[in-house]
Amino acid sequence: MYFYRLSTVHGSFHHVSVNGSLYPAKTKSRRQRWEVKPSEMANNTLNPIRAIVDGMKLSPNPDKPMIALSIGDPTVFGNLPTDEAVLQAMRDAVDSQKFNGYAPSVGYLKSREAVANFYSCSQAPLEADDVILTSGCSQAIDLAISVLCNPGDNILVPCPGFSLYKTLAVSMGIEVKLYNLLPEKSWEIDLQHLESLIDERTSCLIVTNPSNPCGSVFTKEHLQKIIKVASRHCVPILADEIYGDMVSCDCPSMASLSSDVPILSCGGLAKRWLVPGWRMGWILIHDRNDVFGSEIRQGLMKLTQRILGACSIVQGALESILNNTPQSFYNSTIRFLKSNSEICFSELSTVPGLNPVMPSGAMYLMVGIDMDHFPDFKNDVDFTERLVTEQSVFCLPASAFEYPNFFRIVVTVPEEMMVEACARIREFCQRYYRPSSCDSNDLDQ
Amino acid sequence: MYFYRLSTVHGSFHHVSVNGSLYPAKTKSRRQRWEVKPSEMANNTLNPIRAIVDGMKLSPNPDKPMIALSIGDPTVFGNLPTDEAVLQAMRDAVDSQKFNGYAPSVGYLKSREAVANFYSCSQAPLEADDVILTSGCSQAIDLAISVLCNPGDNILVPCPGFSLYKTLAVSMGIEVKLYNLLPEKSWEIDLQHLESLIDERTSCLIVTNPSNPCGSVFTKEHLQKIIKVASRHCVPILADEIYGDMVSCDCPSMASLSSDVPILSCGGLAKRWLVPGWRMGWILIHDRNDVFGSEIRQGLMKLTQRILGACSIVQGALESILNNTPQSFYNSTIRFLKSNSEICFSELSTVPGLNPVMPSGAMYLMVGIDMDHFPDFKNDVDFTERLVTEQSVFCLPASAFEYPNFFRIVVTVPEEMMVEACARIREFCQRYYRPSSCDSNDLDQ
Ligand SMILES: Cc1ncc(COP(=O)(O)O)c(C=O)c1O
Ligand SMILES: Cc1ncc(COP(=O)(O)O)c(C=O)c1O
Repeated sequence: MYFYRLSTVHGSFHHVSVNGSLYPAKTKSRRQRWEVKPSEMANNTLNPIRAIVDGMKLSPNPDKPMIALSIGDPTVFGNLPTDEAVLQAMRDAVDSQKFNGYAPSVGYLKSREAVANFYSCSQAPLEADDVILTSGCSQAIDLAISVLCNPGDNILVPCPGFSLYKTLAVSMGIEVKLYNLLPEKSWEIDLQHLESLIDERTSCLIVTNPSNPCGSVFTKEHLQKIIKVASRHCVPILADEIYGDMVSCDCPSMASLSSDVPILSCGGLAKRWLVPGWRMGWILIHDRNDVFGSEIRQGLMKLTQRILGACSIVQGALESILNNTPQSFYNSTIRFLKSNSEICFSELSTVPGLNPVMPSGAMYLMVGIDMDHFPDFKNDVDFTERLVTEQSVFCLPASAFEYPNFFRIVVTVPEEMMVEACARIREFCQRYYRPSSCDSNDLDQ
Repeated sequence: MYFYRLSTVHGSFHHVSVNGSLYPAKTKSRRQRWEVKPSEMANNTLNPIRAIVDGMKLSPNPDKPMIALSIGDPTVFGNLPTDEAVLQAMRDAVDSQKFNGYAPSVGYLKSREAVANFYSCSQAPLEADDVILTSGCSQAIDLAISVLCNPGDNILVPCPGFSLYKTLAVSMGIEVKLYNLLPEKSWEIDLQHLESLIDERTSCLIVTNPSNPCGSVFTKEHLQKIIKVASRHCVPILADEIYGDMVSCDCPSMASLSSDVPILSCGGLAKRWLVPGWRMGWILIHDRNDVFGSEIRQGLMKLTQRILGACSIVQGALESILNNTPQSFYNSTIRFLKSNSEICFSELSTVPGLNPVMPSGAMYLMVGIDMDHFPDFKNDVDFTERLVTEQSVFCLPASAFEYPNFFRIVVTVPEEMMVEACARIREFCQRYYRPSSCDSNDLDQ
């Protein structure tokens, strides 16, 4: 069966004899033994949550069933299933057999159109070409940082904040500058601090709204002030709006308030539609003043060709998911999260030594610890570790978000778990709370 | 609803006054106007296929319907549907509602177990921990290169070869050294050339077997020789085996032949199961001599946390897909590809000026062009462009694989299309073929 006629043009190209032998011998450069080490990039891909949690001794009290208030996955307890319309859209996409082949690297046109229609508004209109579909919001963030930043640049990241920004940036040689959120102002940004961090290598301002881990939602006025800072210094914004519309208050998108600052808004199905495992995310490109021009768009398109994006079946289901999920589904999720937040907040706000901050969006609540009233514990990691050992309740220490002396509670757990968890936290705090300062306590002992 | 008691410990941390003002003023560093440019990485993400195809004038002959023999997606013509068992596995995964949440970043344990069982053999045993699930084979390749290579390193890549390796490597600052495949030896590797390229910065040897674009399959003996070269120079192998088992001959996995050289074998559902859009890939870690140790594994695990991997629904379906797809499905795909390859090969091997190379795997066939017999055309790009203009047949010029004077034919099209396309290619060649050399032709004119 084998058949070949030598293609002389090409053939002659290869066979160049050097020093009598076909190729020059290399002896010095030969590696003598195996020494395979992970790359710098792999070594520099650091997940602070893993780093902290893996270092904790988490052995629950055998007499109490474990309650994990730590997991940012709303599906784990089964009390928050996605909507039937979402599942039906998937079945239809499978049955159609139209979505088994490669989608374009930026996503199917019809699916991008559906996302554009869903999020378009008069102040910030969107077309299909302004949408890039990605493998989860994580890839959206990865692409947005990758297109805007070079090694040696810096990005502005909220503190406390979602750890992925830093994980990605550091692994790419991009410096992270943390700007402070103010718990006493419902976690608004310390704008003076933010502005003081900007320099000529600042290539991106990341704003997470609503916030993980704070559960806070910025007012329209505050968003306008943030955009002003970005505008003054000509810094584009990466708006992580994955929790957009998961709010019990008004929450305008950043793009709807910006006329000049270009915004890459990152989102996805994970949270609002309660299917984080499906890995369906997107970037919405808002650039009303044509600052990005075609170059950034083309840069994003090139980057999507590296590994391609979201599963074609989910892409095929997307139009129907966005158009057919009933409003009642969204409302009931929000109602549940609000009610659980209120239970948790009102329980913990009367616990001596704890300072919960009431959230108004996303699915988290942050609790400050008056560490000087808990002299038995070194820090938030120690505190939350002991809470597991004694009460079998696990909350993520906010050191994982670069914010010591707080812990984060996920409010997606069933109500009775939330109530029970709060009671156990109260018991724990009552046991270890010392009314006065550390030093005077020491005298008592 | 708002409630907050100032956490003094933390609060005092923030508010540090500098020079009377809260933060030092920065004036010099302020950017005065917008200048947002795509990053080096985005600019350096070059897809040679796009670069070449986008530069071609592809206006088919209006009198002949277009036949695209260029698209590496077996699903586009509808003649190669996936198996019903594959679709049923997806429906079951959706209906179970067990796979909506986040999977572990390396994939569900049960799914990794299923892949391990499917590919394990006595010479190269696999366990779940040796498997990492990824978003398509593309992400598997991305992770494998990312964990093994630093900027400034070099990798060995086949020529002609799949363009993604270079696209990824160059964007990461990794040098690509192309080693020659020999068309006159059924595209075996020129081992001397390969060996001559290795130096102390060579961190990975990529072997694509079966090959895109060649459709070639290496013999066991040739694979053993390749492994010997890697062993002699202590270079780990990335085996791209996405077309593994899509062969009409014997095709052992590289890992089954290696006792000392560690191998990352990349694969996925895309080709054999005919669902490339689903983005389900994997890395199989073979390291019988413990060269990688735990470090490379941990490096891979860290990298998976960047954007997470494959869609949880497809992961949930994976066990059933692997265990329930009938052998008859695989066989009939192979039978079809073999028959189409034979038709194409026997048609084109009697066309003067063309040199097809018979494939024995994957879904491609390469055809050499005796350019000196086609003086009307500058090169393979010109040749294939004119083939579109005149005959409405599009084949990818092999310049897209860094291999001029060849073109690639995808053999997944329906048989009647293949026959018709070959007839048109013959007509085209007969029209432009000049029996003697370019120069003597010039004299005739
Ligand atoms: C603020 C924020 N952004 C992005 C993500 C990642 O979303 P996805 O799961 O779609 O990648 C998360 C997930 O928890 C998040 O909290
Ligand atoms: C040799 C080779 N490796 C990898 C891939 C990518 O596979 P996937 O679509 O699963 O990312 C392809 C796709 O054509 C290929 O030809």
